[in-house]
Amino acid sequence: MKRMLVKKHTGEVEEMRYSLSELNAYEWVWIDLSSPAKEEAAALFRFYHFHPLAVEDCLDAINQRPKVDFFDEYMFLVIYALKENYLMEELDIFVSERLIITYHQKAIKEIEDAWGMATESPPATTIDVLHQLIDKVVDEYFPKAYDIEERLNALEENADLLSIKELMNHLYDLRMIIFRIRRVILPMNDLLYRITHTEKMHLISEKQYYFNDVYDHLLKLREMIEGYRDFSADLRDNYMSVNSNNMNETIMALTVITTIFMPLSFIAGLYGMNFSFMPMAGWRNGFWYVMLVMGISAVLMIIFFMAKGWVFRTKVYTRRKR
Amino acid sequence: MKRMLVKKHTGEVEEMRYSLSELNAYEWVWIDLSSPAKEEAAALFRFYHFHPLAVEDCLDAINQRPKVDFFDEYMFLVIYALKENYLMEELDIFVSERLIITYHQKAIKEIEDAWGMATESPPATTIDVLHQLIDKVVDEYFPKAYDIEERLNALEENADLLSIKELMNHLYDLRMIIFRIRRVILPMNDLLYRITHTEKMHLISEKQYYFNDVYDHLLKLREMIEGYRDFSADLRDNYMSVNSNNMNETIMALTVITTIFMPLSFIAGLYGMNFSFMPMAGWRNGFWYVMLVMGISAVLMIIFFMAKGWVFRTKVYTRRKR
Amino acid sequence: MKRMLVKKHTGEVEEMRYSLSELNAYEWVWIDLSSPAKEEAAALFRFYHFHPLAVEDCLDAINQRPKVDFFDEYMFLVIYALKENYLMEELDIFVSERLIITYHQKAIKEIEDAWGMATESPPATTIDVLHQLIDKVVDEYFPKAYDIEERLNALEENADLLSIKELMNHLYDLRMIIFRIRRVILPMNDLLYRITHTEKMHLISEKQYYFNDVYDHLLKLREMIEGYRDFSADLRDNYMSVNSNNMNETIMALTVITTIFMPLSFIAGLYGMNFSFMPMAGWRNGFWYVMLVMGISAVLMIIFFMAKGWVFRTKVYTRRKR
Amino acid sequence: MKRMLVKKHTGEVEEMRYSLSELNAYEWVWIDLSSPAKEEAAALFRFYHFHPLAVEDCLDAINQRPKVDFFDEYMFLVIYALKENYLMEELDIFVSERLIITYHQKAIKEIEDAWGMATESPPATTIDVLHQLIDKVVDEYFPKAYDIEERLNALEENADLLSIKELMNHLYDLRMIIFRIRRVILPMNDLLYRITHTEKMHLISEKQYYFNDVYDHLLKLREMIEGYRDFSADLRDNYMSVNSNNMNETIMALTVITTIFMPLSFIAGLYGMNFSFMPMAGWRNGFWYVMLVMGISAVLMIIFFMAKGWVFRTKVYTRRKR
Amino acid sequence: MKRMLVKKHTGEVEEMRYSLSELNAYEWVWIDLSSPAKEEAAALFRFYHFHPLAVEDCLDAINQRPKVDFFDEYMFLVIYALKENYLMEELDIFVSERLIITYHQKAIKEIEDAWGMATESPPATTIDVLHQLIDKVVDEYFPKAYDIEERLNALEENADLLSIKELMNHLYDLRMIIFRIRRVILPMNDLLYRITHTEKMHLISEKQYYFNDVYDHLLKLREMIEGYRDFSADLRDNYMSVNSNNMNETIMALTVITTIFMPLSFIAGLYGMNFSFMPMAGWRNGFWYVMLVMGISAVLMIIFFMAKGWVFRTKVYTRRKR
Ligand SMILES: [Mg+2]
Ligand SMILES: [Mg+2]
Ligand SMILES: [Mg+2]
Ligand SMILES: [Mg+2]
Ligand SMILES: [Mg+2]
Ligand SMILES: [Mg+2]
Ligand SMILES: [Mg+2]
Ligand SMILES: [Mg+2]
Ligand SMILES: [Mg+2]
Ligand SMILES: [Mg+2]
Ligand SMILES: [Mg+2]
Ligand SMILES: [Mg+2]
Ligand SMILES: [Mg+2]
Ligand SMILES: [Mg+2]
Ligand SMILES: [Mg+2]
Ligand SMILES: [Mg+2]
Ligand SMILES: [Mg+2]
Ligand SMILES: [Mg+2]
Ligand SMILES: [Mg+2]
Ligand SMILES: [Mg+2]
Ligand SMILES: [Mg+2]
Ligand SMILES: [Mg+2]
Ligand SMILES: [Mg+2]
Ligand SMILES: [Mg+2]
Ligand SMILES: [Mg+2]
Ligand SMILES: [Mg+2]
Ligand SMILES: [Mg+2]
Ligand SMILES: [Mg+2]
Ligand SMILES: [Mg+2]
Ligand SMILES: [Mg+2]
Ligand SMILES: [Mg+2]
Repeated sequence: MKRMLVKKHTGEVEEMRYSLSELNAYEWVWIDLSSPAKEEAAALFRFYHFHPLAVEDCLDAINQRPKVDFFDEYMFLVIYALKENYLMEELDIFVSERLIITYHQKAIKEIEDAWGMATESPPATTIDVLHQLIDKVVDEYFPKAYDIEERLNALEENADLLSIKELMNHLYDLRMIIFRIRRVILPMNDLLYRITHTEKMHLISEKQYYFNDVYDHLLKLREMIEGYRDFSADLRDNYMSVNSNNMNETIMALTVITTIFMPLSFIAGLYGMNFSFMPMAGWRNGFWYVMLVMGISAVLMIIFFMAKGWVFRTKVYTRRKR
Repeated sequence: MKRMLVKKHTGEVEEMRYSLSELNAYEWVWIDLSSPAKEEAAALFRFYHFHPLAVEDCLDAINQRPKVDFFDEYMFLVIYALKENYLMEELDIFVSERLIITYHQKAIKEIEDAWGMATESPPATTIDVLHQLIDKVVDEYFPKAYDIEERLNALEENADLLSIKELMNHLYDLRMIIFRIRRVILPMNDLLYRITHTEKMHLISEKQYYFNDVYDHLLKLREMIEGYRDFSADLRDNYMSVNSNNMNETIMALTVITTIFMPLSFIAGLYGMNFSFMPMAGWRNGFWYVMLVMGISAVLMIIFFMAKGWVFRTKVYTRRKR
Repeated sequence: MKRMLVKKHTGEVEEMRYSLSELNAYEWVWIDLSSPAKEEAAALFRFYHFHPLAVEDCLDAINQRPKVDFFDEYMFLVIYALKENYLMEELDIFVSERLIITYHQKAIKEIEDAWGMATESPPATTIDVLHQLIDKVVDEYFPKAYDIEERLNALEENADLLSIKELMNHLYDLRMIIFRIRRVILPMNDLLYRITHTEKMHLISEKQYYFNDVYDHLLKLREMIEGYRDFSADLRDNYMSVNSNNMNETIMALTVITTIFMPLSFIAGLYGMNFSFMPMAGWRNGFWYVMLVMGISAVLMIIFFMAKGWVFRTKVYTRRKR
Repeated sequence: MKRMLVKKHTGEVEEMRYSLSELNAYEWVWIDLSSPAKEEAAALFRFYHFHPLAVEDCLDAINQRPKVDFFDEYMFLVIYALKENYLMEELDIFVSERLIITYHQKAIKEIEDAWGMATESPPATTIDVLHQLIDKVVDEYFPKAYDIEERLNALEENADLLSIKELMNHLYDLRMIIFRIRRVILPMNDLLYRITHTEKMHLISEKQYYFNDVYDHLLKLREMIEGYRDFSADLRDNYMSVNSNNMNETIMALTVITTIFMPLSFIAGLYGMNFSFMPMAGWRNGFWYVMLVMGISAVLMIIFFMAKGWVFRTKVYTRRKR
Repeated sequence: MKRMLVKKHTGEVEEMRYSLSELNAYEWVWIDLSSPAKEEAAALFRFYHFHPLAVEDCLDAINQRPKVDFFDEYMFLVIYALKENYLMEELDIFVSERLIITYHQKAIKEIEDAWGMATESPPATTIDVLHQLIDKVVDEYFPKAYDIEERLNALEENADLLSIKELMNHLYDLRMIIFRIRRVILPMNDLLYRITHTEKMHLISEKQYYFNDVYDHLLKLREMIEGYRDFSADLRDNYMSVNSNNMNETIMALTVITTIFMPLSFIAGLYGMNFSFMPMAGWRNGFWYVMLVMGISAVLMIIFFMAKGWVFRTKVYTRRKR
């Protein structure tokens, strides 16, 4: 799909039929190319004399990292919109004083919004349009970032009563998402830093406060994402320590039960031997005497384990005395 | 709540009824807006011609990160007061040569303090008021930071005799707090650095020593927080190693008890078999002979384990010889 | 093998017989030395007065790290081509205004490509040739990088149903490759940064956009490689946690089975003792009474373990209540 | 305690009665305040017109981080002396061209040394006195740092044959000390860097080599401390791996013993059953036949475990074949 | 030992008897002091008016970190030669336009080499001598670094079939060596950086390419050492994971054997009870019926474990379904 929005010298903004047109007829022209035929896009870029390298970056199937290139009369930007499921969509933008071209493969909600706004309240320059686009794109990062925060908090609270194994898997998936978003937000930071500090386009300097505002948001996003990374790492360490504590408890239980019953069974085994002559075997209360020995040995074992803190109370930790 | 403090040309400071007023009538005016109606605040900001972006940052429900923006005639700051339970409260400040506006959602003790001080000993300029505000806010970080230190020390000493599991949970909570505070203190550092190095407001340069003093405190806070992070990480590693040592001990006990009683029980089992013809079964002292064999085998086992250091003494560590 | 390509003043490009020749006869000369005799290469370098240190770096058997040295009239570059199996091949390049010499030990596909392109569409200057070479070399990094990404994803999905042990070994190998590639890409980044920012060769400044384009690719590669490193570290942590979970489960199973059967076997052992007088031994239903006791004790054990979450359902995790 | 040392214009240095005195009477005056009454100190600072903020930093009970503040006519330094048990003692210093004031709460050996040296060989300026003080303080860091190194080496060698648990506890304590010292040495580095690079006091520039020498020592200390941190982290990892190896061995022993005796005991249990008709039960050599089966099964088990490397030799590690 | 090499104005280089001599008689003088008497060295340094601080650094028994100090007429360097067993030997160098003094405690092979070369092909200036010395010293780092690489590779391949425990110990030792070398190579990098960027000695600027060449080698060494650190850390993690896998396997074996035989032994125990009336006890085929039950239960257990992947095949890992 290709479409064209122009601002006339009279100040009106109007959507027109797409055509290769001279620019001095209008205040500015915005051409939006959504998954266009490559040859047509190439023809358009040639018509406006864009640099072959910028055109290549734009038309390449391979993703370009977020960046801004300043050419003599125009600049070329690559930014990323964040869509559902944390998927990224590349958006390439050419901006000169009177022309802005947006190029993308899939529909991007933020472009629709900016397009609508430009129609309703006409922006003064192409730089205003550019700001609105970037601002919208960056604003859309926040709900996704807060979504991650909520999912991390949900993992921490574990209202669904998941097992450690399931929590670990969810956490791993979340960390993969955090890493992926981080790989977009860091270069987006650089990009905005370069825009706010450039002196190559006087129109930008005039809107410096506005781009600073977006840069601000990206700084905040960066801090949030780094925070999530630290937070999730600590959560993982916490899970691991819970696992290790559980194993400790289980093994203690195993050791206690084994240590109590092995000697008892051994004594029973002794009297199960088929010797003709065994002490007490023929006594009236032999059975009860042996039972008494067993009972005493069991009680001693349990007292011993209680002293060690292995039963009835989780082991207490004291760093110095142990 | 909205209130207004003015310093008259006569040097007196007086609280007045809130109104949109010309500024040249006074030395300076301080307007404090505590959870005001949004429209009223917006009207106030429009009256004094503040930049829409700064106004947006101020009125937005979403938290802004700590920052300072320098506009032509005024500056806009976002700082954070630290309240009970390590909760943050955003405080937005507009400062021009004759006007200071503070905007916040909840009551902030530090503002009350500064308001009281301004009434008693009138500050010369709005920058003095600003310094007093930031100074108070930063001073209040310290008790909270020292509180964290005490809680970390308490975890280390463990006077309450908590289990490793409980200690781990407390430590995890404490680390979450450390991370959260760190996310405020780092940008506060940048903020003060920018204020102490700006040349945009001559009034600030004149108070440079004073803002440097606050910057100093923030540097110290930063080092403290980073120290807590390292300290808590080491404490966690120490807990994990204690856990692992405990498990080692438990498993050694299990192995010792199993290794001693399994062969004994096996021998007893042998003589429990119901064969018509078994060696020694009919002897007078067969039972005692077998008991002797069992005793010897048990003693040998115990000697073997003592040599391995598994019983009566915790295993000694020598890196070279093993 | 040595060969020579010249661009004549008429604009034609022609492969000629290798010889030590004056350069003003041509627009430019490209000499390609593939595993040449050392003395012959040394003679060539002496003929064109290259600095002994650059010559040493070139002829040394030991690998040089990627770098660029600017001399008065020429520059000397060391770059690396990435071959099959992630092996690196050093490529040394001397470039002056009219001469470019490439020196390498093994055949390098990227040189063949550039050689072919130079023959077909003659580059204007030696810097164009240089750009094409570096561009080709860097372009070839991408398939290898994407290959790593695919292998990491394959490990994550584990369609081949490998064991953790095998996955760990594959991951380790992959990380070694990532480390190795990283050691080339980081200095390649510096190299391109220095080329794009140098003012020592006016021909380079004219092609700045082109070298910037390559620098761009290297920045992307750097981010990819760093991403793989983080990703693989997380994957490894995930495997470790799976291992630890498995062990937890196994030990729970062991503890459950031991705890249920040890008491039962002990009771059986009790009635296996050969005392003349044992309670119930002579009763008609003694056997069934004991069986009942055993059944009840087993049921109680199982109920206890179900309450602890050790059987029929993996243990649930709740941070607070435990 | 307060005392006063003056250098007269005649070049003699003499200890005098403490008084608030005019400075032009002497070459320089050194006032040393050791845990003085706060009001007296405050009076002194007012007399010499020091900035209230510097005075506040000095008199505050709370520790100030190491720093230097340059005022118009003087500078204010906070440094730390390292005392026994790695405790820090704050030392505050005011230095102007003719006056140096040292302020501290406890006796500091390094001040005594500098005081003695100043009496014996009179320093030319207050900056010489300052250099001697800082030099002495920093020199005293070294024995403590080397002491840490020796303790780390002692832990590594473990001549006292401590258990892993004890070693871990010692290592943890040592790391806490390393962290604490690091928090002083890093800002001391900054402090000296600022002194060696300042242009605010011409007397300092003249002694630049001398402050550079101290800076040098601090750089070395920094590298040492960072080295100890890395070293101790590796030592801890090594202990953890030893722990894990020990557990592996213990569990192998447990598994071997269980696996050998469980089947044997089961067979014995079979023939312990009280059936009227059992095969071989009435045979002459039935007992020996069963013993033979048991022996063979035991030997097979042991061969199997030897093949697995679990007995008689620690398991060998081969990455590829396993 | 002290010796003296001079280059005469005639261009000859000659070894002379050591003496305190005027320098204008020669092109340059090289004095080499190997473990000299301290007083003699001090006299020499006084004779040539070297700064007391530099002299102190040189004569101090305590090791100085690698560094360069620029004084008005000379510079003072501290570098480290790497000897057998990765031991460092400090080498102190004073260099002025006509004088170079080398001071060291033990014989250093690299000095012998440079001394020999200086005799054979006379260097033009003292800076050429200095370059040759540093170049030789840095060149000697490489064989040691490659040696570490080989030892790391040997650990990875484990041709000697060492156990994990032994591998861990070797790895730990190797890491200690890596840390130690790193502590020399990092400041050596700074040192060379400062030499290549200084403007204090015009003779150095003229040899800039040569010092750049050495700097290059140090950059490579730095990357190698950092690589070894990463590599060894990964190797250690790999060992730990192997350990953990082994333990998993062992515990699985233990659990399998216990789970199979405990119920069987329990059934045998049941029929070992001495009740007068037991079901099937008197039957002709009672024994065989029980055996059948036992066989079926064993087969069911094994089928269950095969389904869990605990026997006959190492457990397969699938992240999603589990
Ligand atoms: Mg491209
Ligand atoms: Mg594209
Ligand atoms: Mg926005
Ligand atoms: Mg917006
Ligand atoms: Mg904003
Ligand atoms: Mg966290
Ligand atoms: Mg905003
Ligand atoms: Mg707000
Ligand atoms: Mg304060
Ligand atoms: Mg204060
Ligand atoms: Mg202060
Ligand atoms: Mg710590
Ligand atoms: Mg070389
Ligand atoms: Mg080479
Ligand atoms: Mg390319
Ligand atoms: Mg290309
Ligand atoms: Mg490109
Ligand atoms: Mg990852
Ligand atoms: Mg203060
Ligand atoms: Mg103080
Ligand atoms: Mg010193
Ligand atoms: Mg000294
Ligand atoms: Mg020194
Ligand atoms: Mg010195
Ligand atoms: Mg170490
Ligand atoms: Mg010294
Ligand atoms: Mg020395
Ligand atoms: Mg060299
Ligand atoms: Mg060399
Ligand atoms: Mg070289
Ligand atoms: Mg590695």
